[in-house]
Amino acid sequence: MKGQTSGSYTIILRLEIEPAVPFIRIANAVHETGGEIAAVDIVSKSKNMTVRDITVSVSNAENEAELIESVSKIPGIGVVNVSDRTFLMHLGGKLEVHSKVPIKNRDDLSHVYTPGVARVCMALHEDPAKAYSLTIKRNTVAVVTDGTAVLGLGDIGPIAAMPVMEGKAMLFKEMAGIDSFPICLNTKNTEEIIAIVKSIAPVFGGINLEDISSPRCFEIEERLKRELYIPVFHDDQHGTAVVMLAGLINALKIVGKNMSDIKVVFSGIGAAGVACTKMLLAAGVKHIVGATRSVGIVHRGAAYDNPMFQWYAQHSNPDNVTGSLSDAIDGADVFIGLSGPNVITVEDLKKMARDPIVFAMANPTPEILPEVAEPYVRVMATGRSDYPNQLNNVLCFPGIFRGALDCQATAINEEMKLAAAYAIASIVGEDELNEQYIIPSVFNNRVVETVRKKVIEAAMKSGVARKIPHGFA
Amino acid sequence: MKGQTSGSYTIILRLEIEPAVPFIRIANAVHETGGEIAAVDIVSKSKNMTVRDITVSVSNAENEAELIESVSKIPGIGVVNVSDRTFLMHLGGKLEVHSKVPIKNRDDLSHVYTPGVARVCMALHEDPAKAYSLTIKRNTVAVVTDGTAVLGLGDIGPIAAMPVMEGKAMLFKEMAGIDSFPICLNTKNTEEIIAIVKSIAPVFGGINLEDISSPRCFEIEERLKRELYIPVFHDDQHGTAVVMLAGLINALKIVGKNMSDIKVVFSGIGAAGVACTKMLLAAGVKHIVGATRSVGIVHRGAAYDNPMFQWYAQHSNPDNVTGSLSDAIDGADVFIGLSGPNVITVEDLKKMARDPIVFAMANPTPEILPEVAEPYVRVMATGRSDYPNQLNNVLCFPGIFRGALDCQATAINEEMKLAAAYAIASIVGEDELNEQYIIPSVFNNRVVETVRKKVIEAAMKSGVARKIPHGFA
Repeated sequence: MKGQTSGSYTIILRLEIEPAVPFIRIANAVHETGGEIAAVDIVSKSKNMTVRDITVSVSNAENEAELIESVSKIPGIGVVNVSDRTFLMHLGGKLEVHSKVPIKNRDDLSHVYTPGVARVCMALHEDPAKAYSLTIKRNTVAVVTDGTAVLGLGDIGPIAAMPVMEGKAMLFKEMAGIDSFPICLNTKNTEEIIAIVKSIAPVFGGINLEDISSPRCFEIEERLKRELYIPVFHDDQHGTAVVMLAGLINALKIVGKNMSDIKVVFSGIGAAGVACTKMLLAAGVKHIVGATRSVGIVHRGAAYDNPMFQWYAQHSNPDNVTGSLSDAIDGADVFIGLSGPNVITVEDLKKMARDPIVFAMANPTPEILPEVAEPYVRVMATGRSDYPNQLNNVLCFPGIFRGALDCQATAINEEMKLAAAYAIASIVGEDELNEQYIIPSVFNNRVVETVRKKVIEAAMKSGVARKIPHGFA
Repeated sequence: MKGQTSGSYTIILRLEIEPAVPFIRIANAVHETGGEIAAVDIVSKSKNMTVRDITVSVSNAENEAELIESVSKIPGIGVVNVSDRTFLMHLGGKLEVHSKVPIKNRDDLSHVYTPGVARVCMALHEDPAKAYSLTIKRNTVAVVTDGTAVLGLGDIGPIAAMPVMEGKAMLFKEMAGIDSFPICLNTKNTEEIIAIVKSIAPVFGGINLEDISSPRCFEIEERLKRELYIPVFHDDQHGTAVVMLAGLINALKIVGKNMSDIKVVFSGIGAAGVACTKMLLAAGVKHIVGATRSVGIVHRGAAYDNPMFQWYAQHSNPDNVTGSLSDAIDGADVFIGLSGPNVITVEDLKKMARDPIVFAMANPTPEILPEVAEPYVRVMATGRSDYPNQLNNVLCFPGIFRGALDCQATAINEEMKLAAAYAIASIVGEDELNEQYIIPSVFNNRVVETVRKKVIEAAMKSGVARKIPHGFA
């Protein structure tokens, strides 16, 4: 099931080809060096020379170099140029800011700018709540990072983080029509980050924290939630937790078990692991055991430097067992991995209870590869798009913010997150549900609207909605 | 010349009109209460009732109330609804953030987001200068305010300032294709503002400071210019100064005088007054005298609380005269007002040298009204769109930033500002130039491109350009 090439690494070879060269020579050279031809276009054609663009998926930079060398050695072929589709799509950045109203003449200008704008300013000065109707606030979310925990790349800084934040902003717009802007901060100081986000908040209807390293992300999010009156959501924690829960809701239907009866083992107690644990507790799971490679099973009585581990010991491990991850997994119904590659083995899986559920979410390499685990598990999910059951945050953040913005929620609370998880799970119908399909595709166009609706209802019920949107009562 | 109604205050009356009512009854009611009909649209029509939208310019809220009452009293007319065009144009805000690349399927997603984006991030991590090609930085400007000096409205705060900042961002886009985003800060602390702008700078190719009160604006701009490697431009200072100089360049052609020979008197030594003074010194003016209502003529030997006045005393008033504004104006060639309404009189104008040039730029009410000054001055300009010779910052900031971004300038320096002023002045041809036309319209489509070109040349010559744009050598 695992592809040899990744769709995300595509190169475009521009070749000058003499008439005598048959295309199969090129196709063979590409194939023999592990490339996969995705498209062929003719750029120009004359009697003596044809210029073609060959779009090829390759697996990595080495593979690319080998492939280009191999193609260039074909007699009668000249490599004019090699470009990389991913980089081409990033040229000039991925976002634009547009004016919603054209300014074609002095009359337009006098309404949207001086002097007319002064009356709008004064209306806002008298009643700042009107920002939700007279400014971009009602549909605008900041994507805030300090670049300290970007994807699996670590602390690469605010500039290198930009393509991810721009991508996130694109997804907000394309999936849910939300206007979103990247705020990439050149500071790692917790207090500075809190102060900056509070200062820039007037423009925004919500704050999406992104790729901020643990444990600073907890303090930053908690403080901002307390000190701001707009939703603050750390997607790496809560987006992951919501989607994980959505998958688990459906996986449990397949194996016929209840939240309150299962034993769940976590590998990895970082930002996402803690958030997923809290989410499961909120969903009614009683028996959770967490372990890391460095400290083993987290238990009461041990002294941990990380304050989050102290919290974890108090809220998990009811039998207070000790030992390693491998000990914890004994008799577990569910394994949730948010750690690193290859931390569990087939032997571990064999110790689990009947119909094991394994969510191996480490990126890019899961805790155990699906092809290895398959014979020993009932339901398997990962964070990857090249296996079934991709647990992808894109299923959550567009819809949850769409709902929160539409009801002018003051927060995204536990009730709203639970509602989002059940909404995502509900997209997969009972008749469609099976071991290979527990979670909808991110391109399923019912996801955002369903999540939005359930999130608004939960916000209204839990008292954080400031506005009742049309169609709700 | 002054209109009785302002185009920026337009209401739309939706009326139910019985068939027997002739339109002239409505037209008369509007006319008699001082309104001006701009447009009439039919919304629906049946045998018993026509619904029409009547768009009317009114002068103020009192006038609006009177007009509505008068129309509603006409027998056979019902007022369904009254809406305000300026407010209608602000509903939901004036900006949108768009994705430049569609995300229609998993393949698109894998290039613009994970996993493909990781390679772009790493390329930026290895060489942050690539932000100018692989992120939105090269075309993106922050419009930063703390809401302390918004238009003539004063310290109305960051939320009430938003419509102005959104309007500014629209103008950046519509005039010069620049993506711009409002950053409205909920702090007035100088050090905090400096720290925040430095922290958010990675995303931006330039910083436009806006409507920050004096004297904090000087410190904020100076520090940011020193501590950032992207252009920082306080438009209220330098945009005003550039456009004022452009107007003066052309006015002096009309009266046949040289920069080095003229005596210029300033009324008002706030942010804009100081910037205009510096600009004139840079342009070769030798004799400048500044005065304010509170301290009179600024001169050496006096002790001023405001450090900017100390600077001013050292750099102006060569004869070290004392007294009031009225004393200063004696024999002046040029009066520049950046203060408040009605600070000079006809008697003052009579004391000026031959062919007086008066730039009465206070908004909305100039230092002297053009209809009052007209018989006694040769060239008159204001900041208003309803008189000839409008000195409007929109002539400067789009083109100056377009140029600065296109050559990846590290600063907007004196040379670039001077070049911008001469570029704006050059748009008015020698054959077109006259007392009523010293400055081009903001809708003259040659302005931005001409300013851009001259600004790039000046940036290259003065050594602040990091890139030579196509077509320059």
